[in-house]
Amino acid sequence: MQAQLIALDWGTTSLRAYLLGPSGQVLQTRSLACGIMQLPATSRDVAGQRCDNGFELAFDDACGDWLDTHPGIPVIACGMVGSAQGWREAPYRETPASLQALSTALQPVRSVRGVDVHIVPGVIQRSTLPNVMRGEETQVLGVLQRYPLINDCLIGLPGSHSKWVQVQDGCLVHFDTFMTGELYAAACEHTILGRTQQRGGPFDQPAFERGVHVALSADGLLGPLSTLFSARTLGLTGQLSATEQPDYVSGLLIGHELFALSCALRQRRGEQSLPAVILIGNSQLCERYRLALAACGFGDVRLAEQATEQGLWHLAHAAGLVRHNALEG
Amino acid sequence: MQAQLIALDWGTTSLRAYLLGPSGQVLQTRSLACGIMQLPATSRDVAGQRCDNGFELAFDDACGDWLDTHPGIPVIACGMVGSAQGWREAPYRETPASLQALSTALQPVRSVRGVDVHIVPGVIQRSTLPNVMRGEETQVLGVLQRYPLINDCLIGLPGSHSKWVQVQDGCLVHFDTFMTGELYAAACEHTILGRTQQRGGPFDQPAFERGVHVALSADGLLGPLSTLFSARTLGLTGQLSATEQPDYVSGLLIGHELFALSCALRQRRGEQSLPAVILIGNSQLCERYRLALAACGFGDVRLAEQATEQGLWHLAHAAGLVRHNALEG
Repeated sequence: MQAQLIALDWGTTSLRAYLLGPSGQVLQTRSLACGIMQLPATSRDVAGQRCDNGFELAFDDACGDWLDTHPGIPVIACGMVGSAQGWREAPYRETPASLQALSTALQPVRSVRGVDVHIVPGVIQRSTLPNVMRGEETQVLGVLQRYPLINDCLIGLPGSHSKWVQVQDGCLVHFDTFMTGELYAAACEHTILGRTQQRGGPFDQPAFERGVHVALSADGLLGPLSTLFSARTLGLTGQLSATEQPDYVSGLLIGHELFALSCALRQRRGEQSLPAVILIGNSQLCERYRLALAACGFGDVRLAEQATEQGLWHLAHAAGLVRHNALEG
Repeated sequence: MQAQLIALDWGTTSLRAYLLGPSGQVLQTRSLACGIMQLPATSRDVAGQRCDNGFELAFDDACGDWLDTHPGIPVIACGMVGSAQGWREAPYRETPASLQALSTALQPVRSVRGVDVHIVPGVIQRSTLPNVMRGEETQVLGVLQRYPLINDCLIGLPGSHSKWVQVQDGCLVHFDTFMTGELYAAACEHTILGRTQQRGGPFDQPAFERGVHVALSADGLLGPLSTLFSARTLGLTGQLSATEQPDYVSGLLIGHELFALSCALRQRRGEQSLPAVILIGNSQLCERYRLALAACGFGDVRLAEQATEQGLWHLAHAAGLVRHNALEG
């Protein structure tokens, strides 16, 4: 099957490369530890030129053979590769942001191989407290293309910095960020809580749900700065074992995130009903969020897969880089 | 003036020693970096015996000459020295906790010098989420002795783990803990927020108050897991400089702490009025809390000094270790 597009998901710590076929199906995929903060540093020849640019080297590592095999194949990339610290800055586009708007703002960078890499811009929301994303906009667009009839929906992207995106009429209209994943790691690794934890075991669902329950309870009103200390005091009083503590803390933080989110949504929507949710991301993390969303009263929660590669495919298509044979023919 | 008592404030990272006179006045004071987590490790002779116990060595470093000069002088100590990792565990006493109750539960440990060190127990509150303190109970009792007419008052002890203690009729009746200081350090040193911060400058009060204001605003409803990200996005959009970011983050976290506390107090008290507050601790940190407390509607805020040494003096007196000449004679 003829390859049509090279699609790159190029973040801070990793680079995932997809070779996509005539209707966007994945033909091959690769994952390299060549995020923009850990690029290759050893110079070598690329396309007959001596090269010490880490972006060029990583691009060649990831796709050199694909480019040789499929001359003229277009390339698109999303993620931190388009940040100020990236290969070429692709300035943020403002909300509301549609597939059309982003596809007309791809930022090309010409590689030493003579190929243009088209970088997807991130999205900025210029609210009182501004908000930004890079990479997640592509995943959201991938989901919207997959479920074109969905409207008034919340798309959740759990991670180091969780994003919650409200979509309407095919646009990203509003989003919120929670630093839950990164603060979880910092709390477990760099505060007193880590001293009594035993990490690395299998997921302890009861401990996780206990943490969620506390965050949603009357005790949770004091907020995460206070409830986190209960991981220590429950441990001191023999009510929470060392192996239970990590998932209890995870449940506390995710519970606080989702409780605050649900309150804000109810306030914004002026009603008691919560929107349908689609989750994108690591399946184990999505399972934690699914459990906690249910506890918060979110009744309709689905998981989406292949969001990034689908988003990149549809952006490339909208930009005229590829023809969408399957849907068109 | 004749020394009457050696009083030790012995925490995790430091050991403060006070030599107190006939009415509890401070005659001499010393501070050593000999907290229970960084005790001396080089063995030597103490009182004619070879000694490698870090507690004995630190005690001798801090007070050996005082003990030689004032034979038979009593010794009292509070703080983590009484924890399971301390010199001798002084089991927690339950709330409500009074001067009388704690003074009858001092835990003596006999040093190689033949002197008993009387360790003050910590306090535990056996609520659904238990809460514990060690050292702060002594400071609170010191304040209560200094202001004996105060009642229905909230005593705040800002720090790595801030404590907020409700006192009534001379007893500690309820307290809450917030890990604000420790989480502030973890967020600044071990998350993405640190990358754009320039720390070490003088206190930037406007940046701090801006953070407090955000925590108390409609945007603050999403909680600290979310608002923290605004330090990054305001930076990215040129609205918050690198030098402003640390105090902005400090204001955010302290603002969230005090807003949650004020909501919980109003709910518990079933009324809109907030109690009078007395702050104990580092004067620069207390100034931050004073600013944020005012923004939260706490109208009556005072600062207390010498709380630890006063608390230790009155506990020693209640336990019969010293006679309180000035007040009695």
